[in-house]
Amino acid sequence: MNNFIFNNPTKIIFGRNTIIQIGEELKKLGIYKVLFLYGGNSIKNNGTYEQVRNSLINHNIEFIEHSGVQPNPILTHTEIGIDLCKENGVTAILAVGGGSVIDEAKAIAAGAYLPNLWDAYAGKVKVTQALPIFTILTISGTGSEMNGSSVLTNSETEQKWFISAHCLFPKISIINPSVMRTLPWNQTVNGGIDAISHTLENYVMGKDQEISISIQESIFKSIISALDNLQIDKNNYESRASLAWASTIALNGIAGAGMGGGDWAVHRIEHALSAIRPDIAHGTGLAIIFPAYLKFVYEFNKVHLDRFAKNVWNCDSFEEAIETMKAKYKSWGSAISLSELNIEENQFSAIAKKALEQTEIGKLKNLSNEDVIEILKIAF
Amino acid sequence: MNNFIFNNPTKIIFGRNTIIQIGEELKKLGIYKVLFLYGGNSIKNNGTYEQVRNSLINHNIEFIEHSGVQPNPILTHTEIGIDLCKENGVTAILAVGGGSVIDEAKAIAAGAYLPNLWDAYAGKVKVTQALPIFTILTISGTGSEMNGSSVLTNSETEQKWFISAHCLFPKISIINPSVMRTLPWNQTVNGGIDAISHTLENYVMGKDQEISISIQESIFKSIISALDNLQIDKNNYESRASLAWASTIALNGIAGAGMGGGDWAVHRIEHALSAIRPDIAHGTGLAIIFPAYLKFVYEFNKVHLDRFAKNVWNCDSFEEAIETMKAKYKSWGSAISLSELNIEENQFSAIAKKALEQTEIGKLKNLSNEDVIEILKIAF
Repeated sequence: MNNFIFNNPTKIIFGRNTIIQIGEELKKLGIYKVLFLYGGNSIKNNGTYEQVRNSLINHNIEFIEHSGVQPNPILTHTEIGIDLCKENGVTAILAVGGGSVIDEAKAIAAGAYLPNLWDAYAGKVKVTQALPIFTILTISGTGSEMNGSSVLTNSETEQKWFISAHCLFPKISIINPSVMRTLPWNQTVNGGIDAISHTLENYVMGKDQEISISIQESIFKSIISALDNLQIDKNNYESRASLAWASTIALNGIAGAGMGGGDWAVHRIEHALSAIRPDIAHGTGLAIIFPAYLKFVYEFNKVHLDRFAKNVWNCDSFEEAIETMKAKYKSWGSAISLSELNIEENQFSAIAKKALEQTEIGKLKNLSNEDVIEILKIAF
Repeated sequence: MNNFIFNNPTKIIFGRNTIIQIGEELKKLGIYKVLFLYGGNSIKNNGTYEQVRNSLINHNIEFIEHSGVQPNPILTHTEIGIDLCKENGVTAILAVGGGSVIDEAKAIAAGAYLPNLWDAYAGKVKVTQALPIFTILTISGTGSEMNGSSVLTNSETEQKWFISAHCLFPKISIINPSVMRTLPWNQTVNGGIDAISHTLENYVMGKDQEISISIQESIFKSIISALDNLQIDKNNYESRASLAWASTIALNGIAGAGMGGGDWAVHRIEHALSAIRPDIAHGTGLAIIFPAYLKFVYEFNKVHLDRFAKNVWNCDSFEEAIETMKAKYKSWGSAISLSELNIEENQFSAIAKKALEQTEIGKLKNLSNEDVIEILKIAF
């Protein structure tokens, strides 16, 4: 068990009929003007928009709407949000949506106090101040509702980078699994695979952190079983709830306790991939790269990855487990190879270069440019 | 999954060489005078006292010592602590020890703002204000280092009651598993059984909260394996760490998420038992009563308790699992029957009466006076 600090101040309000509480919660904290941030029409179609709007109006909370957040949120849209905050004197950001909306909310919250927001994502300045953030989660997966991290894309430079700061933890996140039953199936799957992948980034570093490893295995198995159930019945509330909460704790500090911060090489490779091909959903990219990466690093943590094969996939061999994992992802409808997405082999070196652009990657095995290309080949 | 709120603001600093950080952490928060609360000589013998003292002195933090906290902390000693706070104008409580010391710290912290502290434990007034609490944990088990609850004994009335409030969550808790290797074996065991029992209080309510149930099973298995390892080698750091962190998350809101608040009947019965016989350690009382209680309520949650038998004890039948559980507790050196503690059958009705004195008990099955006596008979 590596030394660690756990310090997660986000208040989670979880369950049915919880969205309407947002107005009262904001009022209790003395907040009367928010930027209401969301993506497209999905929150209007599933009734969330109306519930939020009514709750705000009923509690005399003014709101400036800023919609159109993209699945991979981008800097230019964020900058418009920052300007809206400044022009209107809002005192908090209310993000209603999934991880992308929440990530952009964090960017706006930090950007309200920075002369140049991208400098923070580029690691040139530290984020020490932010507007308070509140979230209503409508799709689980990223875990952004209960951590201080945000990923943003600079379309101009094709860079997808992240920031992390204590002031970016949402004050309150409301998670109502019921609203997630209206999601398209592929989004449910991508969210689940994203959360499995967050857990894997810690799991690959596993050695002797028994309680954390065991909890990670609980997360894997709960998500797999929830997705299997939801594929049969998308209205299964218990499976929606299990998937949602498992996804939150996958990245709120609990699953990663004592894991030395995790590896995160696969996320960096995937960010490079989806920076070049923004149409690829994060979860899909992870579904393709993670099995390939596990094969590549197997020899560096054999005993532990054999445990993964046995405890999570009920397989006698690691090879068999990876095939089972890929077959499971495929059975949920996910792509499991780069070739399916029409990525060409001649793009590998550009992806590898981008993955290594900001800093070194890979803790279990420090990855060279050639290593990343090799992983992409396995994933092809 | 029942609706739930998770809101745990305690900052955990976990691992080796962490105790010396206390002075700096207090200084960062502008705290310069604390009540330094502890039990007996164990923190002096294992070097913790010296480390804390030096860290406080090095950061110019004044401290008033208040030692002699008992294993079941009592009201009269707490009241002396409250007077010390008032007389000396301390602005925070620093608890160094196990759950008893932390529980008394919470009592003192709340008592500093109340005309009559026992009124709060008696449920007559609400705790809304408290001095900030900091803890250095030297024995794991109660989970008090990361929650807002406190159990206190009124020796005069033989009442062992509890309070719970958001302001009683410690601001910072430092957990260094290394110091726990100096504990007497029976204290390590009692702490582990206490944490298993906290988890069981939620587990018995299990139905369809898959992720939480699975995490609870991780906690059971990690603690069992840690205690087995520590019985062979008390210096096994990884097992100390796994036991410590599993005990913390057993009662910090994670293991109980969506479980409807848990049952807690067994804790109430144990509190009644140890109110009458304060020499009985809480963990020992739980080791005896829980298996008996599980037998008594089996028919009310059969499918789930069969899962418990299989997943936790690797047994085909529930009956066999309970015998395995008792044998395991016994192998660690714990008492597993009331008769071993020289409790007489004619004391059962007094214990039952006391258990039911404050409110009703039992959610899975509402327990009558006769039910409690029946459970005690099984535990005899």
